[in-house]
Amino acid sequence: MYRYDAPLREMRFVIEEVLRAPDDWRETPLFADLDTDTAAEVLQQAARFAGEVLQPLNAPGDREGCRLEGGRVKTPAGFPQAWAAFVEGGWPALACDPEFGGQGLPQVLNAALFEMLVAANHAWVMYPGLLHGAYETLKAHGSPALRQAYLPRLVSGQWLAAMALSEPQAGSDLGLVRTAATPQADGSLRISGGKIFISGGDHDLSDNIVHLVLCRLPDAPPGSKGLSLALVPAVLPDGARNAMHCDGLEHKMGIHGSATCVMRYEGATGWLVGEPHRGLGAMFVMMNAARLHVGLQGLGHLEMAAQNARRYAAERLQMRAARRPDDAPAAAADPIAWHPAMRRTLRDLQALSEGLRVVAYRAATVIDVLEQHPDPQRRAAAAAEAALLTPVVKAFCSQQGFEGASAALQVFGGYGFLRDYGIEQTLRDARIGAIYEGTNQIQAIDLLVRKVLGPSGPAFEAWLDVLAEGADADAALGTALRQQIAFAHEALTAVRAGAARDAEAPFRVADDFLAGVAHLLLAWAWCLSAGAARRAAERGGDAVWLAERVSLARHGADWILPQAAVHWQRVRTMAALGAVAV
Amino acid sequence: MYRYDAPLREMRFVIEEVLRAPDDWRETPLFADLDTDTAAEVLQQAARFAGEVLQPLNAPGDREGCRLEGGRVKTPAGFPQAWAAFVEGGWPALACDPEFGGQGLPQVLNAALFEMLVAANHAWVMYPGLLHGAYETLKAHGSPALRQAYLPRLVSGQWLAAMALSEPQAGSDLGLVRTAATPQADGSLRISGGKIFISGGDHDLSDNIVHLVLCRLPDAPPGSKGLSLALVPAVLPDGARNAMHCDGLEHKMGIHGSATCVMRYEGATGWLVGEPHRGLGAMFVMMNAARLHVGLQGLGHLEMAAQNARRYAAERLQMRAARRPDDAPAAAADPIAWHPAMRRTLRDLQALSEGLRVVAYRAATVIDVLEQHPDPQRRAAAAAEAALLTPVVKAFCSQQGFEGASAALQVFGGYGFLRDYGIEQTLRDARIGAIYEGTNQIQAIDLLVRKVLGPSGPAFEAWLDVLAEGADADAALGTALRQQIAFAHEALTAVRAGAARDAEAPFRVADDFLAGVAHLLLAWAWCLSAGAARRAAERGGDAVWLAERVSLARHGADWILPQAAVHWQRVRTMAALGAVAV
Repeated sequence: MYRYDAPLREMRFVIEEVLRAPDDWRETPLFADLDTDTAAEVLQQAARFAGEVLQPLNAPGDREGCRLEGGRVKTPAGFPQAWAAFVEGGWPALACDPEFGGQGLPQVLNAALFEMLVAANHAWVMYPGLLHGAYETLKAHGSPALRQAYLPRLVSGQWLAAMALSEPQAGSDLGLVRTAATPQADGSLRISGGKIFISGGDHDLSDNIVHLVLCRLPDAPPGSKGLSLALVPAVLPDGARNAMHCDGLEHKMGIHGSATCVMRYEGATGWLVGEPHRGLGAMFVMMNAARLHVGLQGLGHLEMAAQNARRYAAERLQMRAARRPDDAPAAAADPIAWHPAMRRTLRDLQALSEGLRVVAYRAATVIDVLEQHPDPQRRAAAAAEAALLTPVVKAFCSQQGFEGASAALQVFGGYGFLRDYGIEQTLRDARIGAIYEGTNQIQAIDLLVRKVLGPSGPAFEAWLDVLAEGADADAALGTALRQQIAFAHEALTAVRAGAARDAEAPFRVADDFLAGVAHLLLAWAWCLSAGAARRAAERGGDAVWLAERVSLARHGADWILPQAAVHWQRVRTMAALGAVAV
Repeated sequence: MYRYDAPLREMRFVIEEVLRAPDDWRETPLFADLDTDTAAEVLQQAARFAGEVLQPLNAPGDREGCRLEGGRVKTPAGFPQAWAAFVEGGWPALACDPEFGGQGLPQVLNAALFEMLVAANHAWVMYPGLLHGAYETLKAHGSPALRQAYLPRLVSGQWLAAMALSEPQAGSDLGLVRTAATPQADGSLRISGGKIFISGGDHDLSDNIVHLVLCRLPDAPPGSKGLSLALVPAVLPDGARNAMHCDGLEHKMGIHGSATCVMRYEGATGWLVGEPHRGLGAMFVMMNAARLHVGLQGLGHLEMAAQNARRYAAERLQMRAARRPDDAPAAAADPIAWHPAMRRTLRDLQALSEGLRVVAYRAATVIDVLEQHPDPQRRAAAAAEAALLTPVVKAFCSQQGFEGASAALQVFGGYGFLRDYGIEQTLRDARIGAIYEGTNQIQAIDLLVRKVLGPSGPAFEAWLDVLAEGADADAALGTALRQQIAFAHEALTAVRAGAARDAEAPFRVADDFLAGVAHLLLAWAWCLSAGAARRAAERGGDAVWLAERVSLARHGADWILPQAAVHWQRVRTMAALGAVAV
């Protein structure tokens, strides 16, 4: 049966042993009182909510989907009650500022929470998924009055948020947005226009839905430098409904339980967030939080797919294996987990899941440092690393979530193609991750063209030096990591030279560059993981369980890392590649 | 709008110029009267049927699906009428023996027909998809009475066929089949048992459905050497309905218009096909035909995805491209086809589609030679090549069909995830190809362990020599092909040595070996394609169109072939890889 057992032990190992986040907590006033037992208790409660409340709603929510009734969206059965329970448990406030009612816990715990929620029910997570981003945006750019009116109720989860960016002609290219904002005498704005792909634009989970709408003031310059951001609540402060309507719901390949709304604003009342014409910058605060969450979604899907494939493969008997355990009884057929092709898939998935958890949680710990650490040098280094890590985590984890779901589906054979076995829903739900919050191709351009070949070049090289320090953790895996770092330096030299000759060349290999960096980060993660496992074993930890972490890290290096060579090679030979006429 | 324009010009180029099939036709009595104009006319009619009759039923069929009404299956609106039109056009008989009413045309034309039908409507093709396999099985193993009673009506399409193999406990491992066959005094059998995953086990397209049921006689030895094959028609010769029932339909991720039946045989009347206990061998005649068709399905999906992504990318305007044509007018946004990441995807897909068409059609021409050529040496060589090509075509084309659909979906951005844009259905439909008719992992074991490391070792090396002759067609691509062949020889040496030390080792790298051979075949296909294009240009052909074939072949060598190195490397280092305890 398709089910979710949160990998709590693996999560704690990553947070406490591999990343040693508690060392940072002790240095950070906000987290100084947090001990690992409390953190572990938070994760255990989250695991219970994900497994017992959310996962049972996942398949029924997929079948029922959302519908429009009398102009309002109805979500699948149980979704509003699950939200009420989530609010009751105080979960929305987990990593928010105590000033606005938050619990002030580290982002890395919030990351683990989101991994669990998504693994259990991606569609449901779409409703609170943007809450933290809206909170960050308002906190950074909202006027004191807006912050006071909206932040506490977003933090508590009484109200939810939606992010209204796309229009039919403006998807990846937000500079083409047309929604109009007309200033009023009272300082408010009248918002008019149509938006598409608005997740949770309407629903029945909360009394109010706070839209952050990308729009254009009358005197705006054309393009992305003329965009403003407006806060447009579905329910106005006087209790009246705002002039905004959900005109339709999209029929999608997956996440059926998430309401993807076509929205119409007909002179809706809103208020400017941040400076006029600086809306894109204000929005990007939200986008970066959203991008880390998309990465965590991929990780959640990967873990869900991997653990269910392992359980199925241990029980499904087909054919005798080429090699059987010495003590296996005579049998007409063996568990398919014993067959090499299946065993390889299962271990690929597990090694990827464990490696990517280290990388994604690292992004969260870096955000904790950049937001909260008292040392400005640490904060600056963390900010530089977050800028480089975010696109990699978003793109690579979302890709692996989808591809991992497909590999896991294959383990189920014909049953994998059937709705009742659950894995095909994971595959359908996971596919959106490579698209939304900036396609994976846009992440790659962000990493290589905007950052590494732009102002972040020195930061990238400094980061490689920091990552290289991890190579001491394990001799064999350290060699693999050093090789990846050498590849990265060669690629950087080649791509700089190539860019000087042909400005388009880096765009052609940006996807390969990002994939190369992602593999480098996997090498780093596996190396750290193996080292941490050995240290823990020396301290008397569970030798069998810890040896399995080392074994999986080595499996990753043997079977998955060789793929990096292709990506780095394409970056090196980029000048010769694909320079065809348009 | 999602639509299908059959790539007739590309298909003719492959058949006439790259593979030069008409040279073989002239040497083959059955095909001696066939000229290229007649063949082209057949393909043009097929393209019209696929594009005008089948494709409009594809999306509606996906939404409507199949249903059970009063114990009988109803297919989506229009499916039975499309079948009647197909029969009316004489299409089922295309490549069948004139002795049984067939048209006696080459398999390569049938392959092109199937590519078109699947691209237009995979679910519908599932009904006639097994017809040819059933025809081959009956023709090879049926008694004269059965052949006379059933073959003409299968050839005409008056009746359809179903292949009843899987049971809940017996999927990849057919040795576990339990369905019982009890001999009767009149020479018939009584069949009792349950089968699952029976495509077209019941439907409303034809009056009768002829099941080929894998079953076990009372005196059968256990395992796969005790399986027999029975012909079990839904309607008996006296007009009565047989004791067989569709108990349910599976709810699947894709091909919703195809009825995947749970079948129950309750003492149904049947007749033995072939020898007792030799059913698996008789069935394999059918499986090999089915495997080539699964490969063609992958090719059809790839082509459909690729051409629709190209059309969308030419029209969708987002952002200014890094490089624009010199004569492009000023514009706020350019077609996304001009953006390097999208252009690369579009060209990857087109190069793969054109290369895999050469490989898949080669498998069909080889079957034509092995079945019809007067020279026994040519027939023997063709049989050896067909045995090696079949698993590669099945596995690699089905994988590329799915992955290509996902890459094409990415070109559509958020719209790709919506049902209305069509591409998500292609992705869902394409996913089954890697599973049915023997999973892709089983194809890989078939190729490496059963064939190359078994009796086909010398044939494999001889085949590499034949493929190497293609390297003269193009200097640059010839070098790439020779490199792939050298890789294959190295891998073969390593895998033989590894197998001698550890019998399980080849099983661990069988997937990589197959992927390596598939890339080698792509190198061969692109090399031949470029050479044929240049020859055709010298003869005064359309220089622009032919230069595009050369350009796509080079693109494939530059961007896609490097992936082969990873697969060959894993095969070479196999002994060290993954030899973990079970």
